[in-house]
Amino acid sequence: MPNPRTHFRPDARLIVAASDSDANLLYATRFFAPDPFIFFQHRGKKHLVMSDLELDRARQQAHVDYVLSLAAVERELKDNKRLVIDTAAVLHHLFQTKKIHSVLVPSNFPLGLADRLRRRGLRVVASSHAFFPEREVKSEEEIREISKAQRAAEAGMEAAIAMIRESHISRRLLYQGKAKLTAEMVKERIVAVAMRHGCLASHTIVACGEQGCDPHEEGHGTLRAHQPIILDIFPRSQSSGYWGDLTRTIVKGRASERLKNAYAAVLAGQSLALGRIRAGVRGEAIHQAILDDFKRLGFETGLQDGRMQGFFHGTGHGVGLEIHELPRLSPRGQSRLKPGHVVTVEPGLYYFNLGGVRLEDLLVVTKTGNRNLTRFPKYLEV
Amino acid sequence: MPNPRTHFRPDARLIVAASDSDANLLYATRFFAPDPFIFFQHRGKKHLVMSDLELDRARQQAHVDYVLSLAAVERELKDNKRLVIDTAAVLHHLFQTKKIHSVLVPSNFPLGLADRLRRRGLRVVASSHAFFPEREVKSEEEIREISKAQRAAEAGMEAAIAMIRESHISRRLLYQGKAKLTAEMVKERIVAVAMRHGCLASHTIVACGEQGCDPHEEGHGTLRAHQPIILDIFPRSQSSGYWGDLTRTIVKGRASERLKNAYAAVLAGQSLALGRIRAGVRGEAIHQAILDDFKRLGFETGLQDGRMQGFFHGTGHGVGLEIHELPRLSPRGQSRLKPGHVVTVEPGLYYFNLGGVRLEDLLVVTKTGNRNLTRFPKYLEV
Repeated sequence: MPNPRTHFRPDARLIVAASDSDANLLYATRFFAPDPFIFFQHRGKKHLVMSDLELDRARQQAHVDYVLSLAAVERELKDNKRLVIDTAAVLHHLFQTKKIHSVLVPSNFPLGLADRLRRRGLRVVASSHAFFPEREVKSEEEIREISKAQRAAEAGMEAAIAMIRESHISRRLLYQGKAKLTAEMVKERIVAVAMRHGCLASHTIVACGEQGCDPHEEGHGTLRAHQPIILDIFPRSQSSGYWGDLTRTIVKGRASERLKNAYAAVLAGQSLALGRIRAGVRGEAIHQAILDDFKRLGFETGLQDGRMQGFFHGTGHGVGLEIHELPRLSPRGQSRLKPGHVVTVEPGLYYFNLGGVRLEDLLVVTKTGNRNLTRFPKYLEV
Repeated sequence: MPNPRTHFRPDARLIVAASDSDANLLYATRFFAPDPFIFFQHRGKKHLVMSDLELDRARQQAHVDYVLSLAAVERELKDNKRLVIDTAAVLHHLFQTKKIHSVLVPSNFPLGLADRLRRRGLRVVASSHAFFPEREVKSEEEIREISKAQRAAEAGMEAAIAMIRESHISRRLLYQGKAKLTAEMVKERIVAVAMRHGCLASHTIVACGEQGCDPHEEGHGTLRAHQPIILDIFPRSQSSGYWGDLTRTIVKGRASERLKNAYAAVLAGQSLALGRIRAGVRGEAIHQAILDDFKRLGFETGLQDGRMQGFFHGTGHGVGLEIHELPRLSPRGQSRLKPGHVVTVEPGLYYFNLGGVRLEDLLVVTKTGNRNLTRFPKYLEV
């Protein structure tokens, strides 16, 4: 079967999604909506088709050329005695009027709708690459929005560390006054502070001791002294949709020598990456350099006692309207970094008899190096 | 073209998505993950294919029969000298081993992946109905989880109304001490309280005066006296993924007679619905009854001065692992309500010279009526 992309010139580009959760649609329209709506770009003009509920707001807020009324199209279909009035029928009707016979859609376009459109004779081709490749390279305005979200993460981090620093230790547990200090209490504080900065911090990680060995474990229960606590905060701006991403690891009390060594290795790995990241470098090379450095320092990666230990996640990922987007700093990061890429650098080490250590900054790639968007200091004991 | 669903018996059911944002996948696995992963159900057994990063956590937490290692499958492909090692290649390899030649997928399955699988000879059919129809009808355990989220919404509502009640009025604006009381401050409080109940309250609405006329406007700026303030809180449990949904409208100070009448009409419309909702009734009929009642009371719906005014959104929607799911209580609600449906009942009236009024409860449909999961009282002036 020939590759359908070859020489394909679509009559239009089409997205049907909810922009609250679809970054391409938010990028194209700068309009947040919780329910799916239709976007298409035809002859350079951006069109939306909106329900009555969103019509006025879309006309005021969306960065598009035309906002059409879904109810009006549905009325036309009814007047034409059409029996099925669904999204495929609406699109078929609109596209007939505009002589659109083929569309390019994002690869995550819903299959059910694509098949219904194809049965109506429309050629629907899924983009095999990024739908908006320009999304990877951030403008100055986008970098400002990401920086604002990073400020929210830093404010949350400061408040969280203050709570932990001001706690007291009794029988190796942390207390706030007479109450045990829990991961949940710290997360609640982080969420409130991020909200004050206009950001929503979901799935914040406050993972103490062995909880930190699973990089996606969010953490729960009473925090303990003399053990590493990973704080990973990734707030999303409620106005712009851009994300920040920040991780620190701290200990209330005394860190063991081995933990101090692991922390020093992670810090050195991150510094090594920060020194090498610039336009033209492959993400994979950065990741491999850190892995090699860890190995040289005696921190091995692989299965131990049946579980992955060491450094078994990527070094970093792009951040923008999605928290995880291209490019990758990982074994899969084959493409070269470009100026304007915004990426995390977050090496970590995880061992079951030690706990987890991770440090994460967010930076912009430049021609000659990179600019760190993160200001928050790094220290282990508090 | 014949309907491909007819007599279709798939060898397996397949989902590839991130369960943080895909309710079907969360329903099937009860496992939260931020990045896409593979789920398939074959001969009644549930399988996951997970990256190293999620392997251990999935084995501990996911409600499935088998958790396979993505890295292991990728190594096999490498050993077989396969050049392309992507999700389609991984699935093709697994499905060959298991003699799976056809799959049923949800209608939102990503088109790009579906087309790549089809090019490899797999029959991929998008479900034309709900992928898990049983999701619509909630079990007692699910109703308990939804109720917990509704308690979080109520705690947020109580804190928000307390802030507004305790504010003082100066020149028709609300003040907290010497500072103006803003929508943002109230939202921050709601988010913090919801978090204390283990829930994330995103896109909370605190919309004063004409801001409330756009049902999806989240609200901003200083709150004003003697005007309706719509508070719409829909928190999601961070542990279970179930949502709550609650709306109240209040006035700090004195409501005008017209506003009192609109409030009384909305309250009456809601009561009418609460009295009629039971198994067997169509959602559309409930919606139409409220519209008729509003009209009878002199509250017309339609374009006025070029904008939609009156009651121009649905009366309610299903709530579960998605905030908006089936069934509908709206002109599109053609199917009959069933015992175990959890739906909102949220009539509203919106006029530009008045502001918005909306009241929303969340209830379970029963054989003989319904059970309200909402305890929060209803009053206008505070």
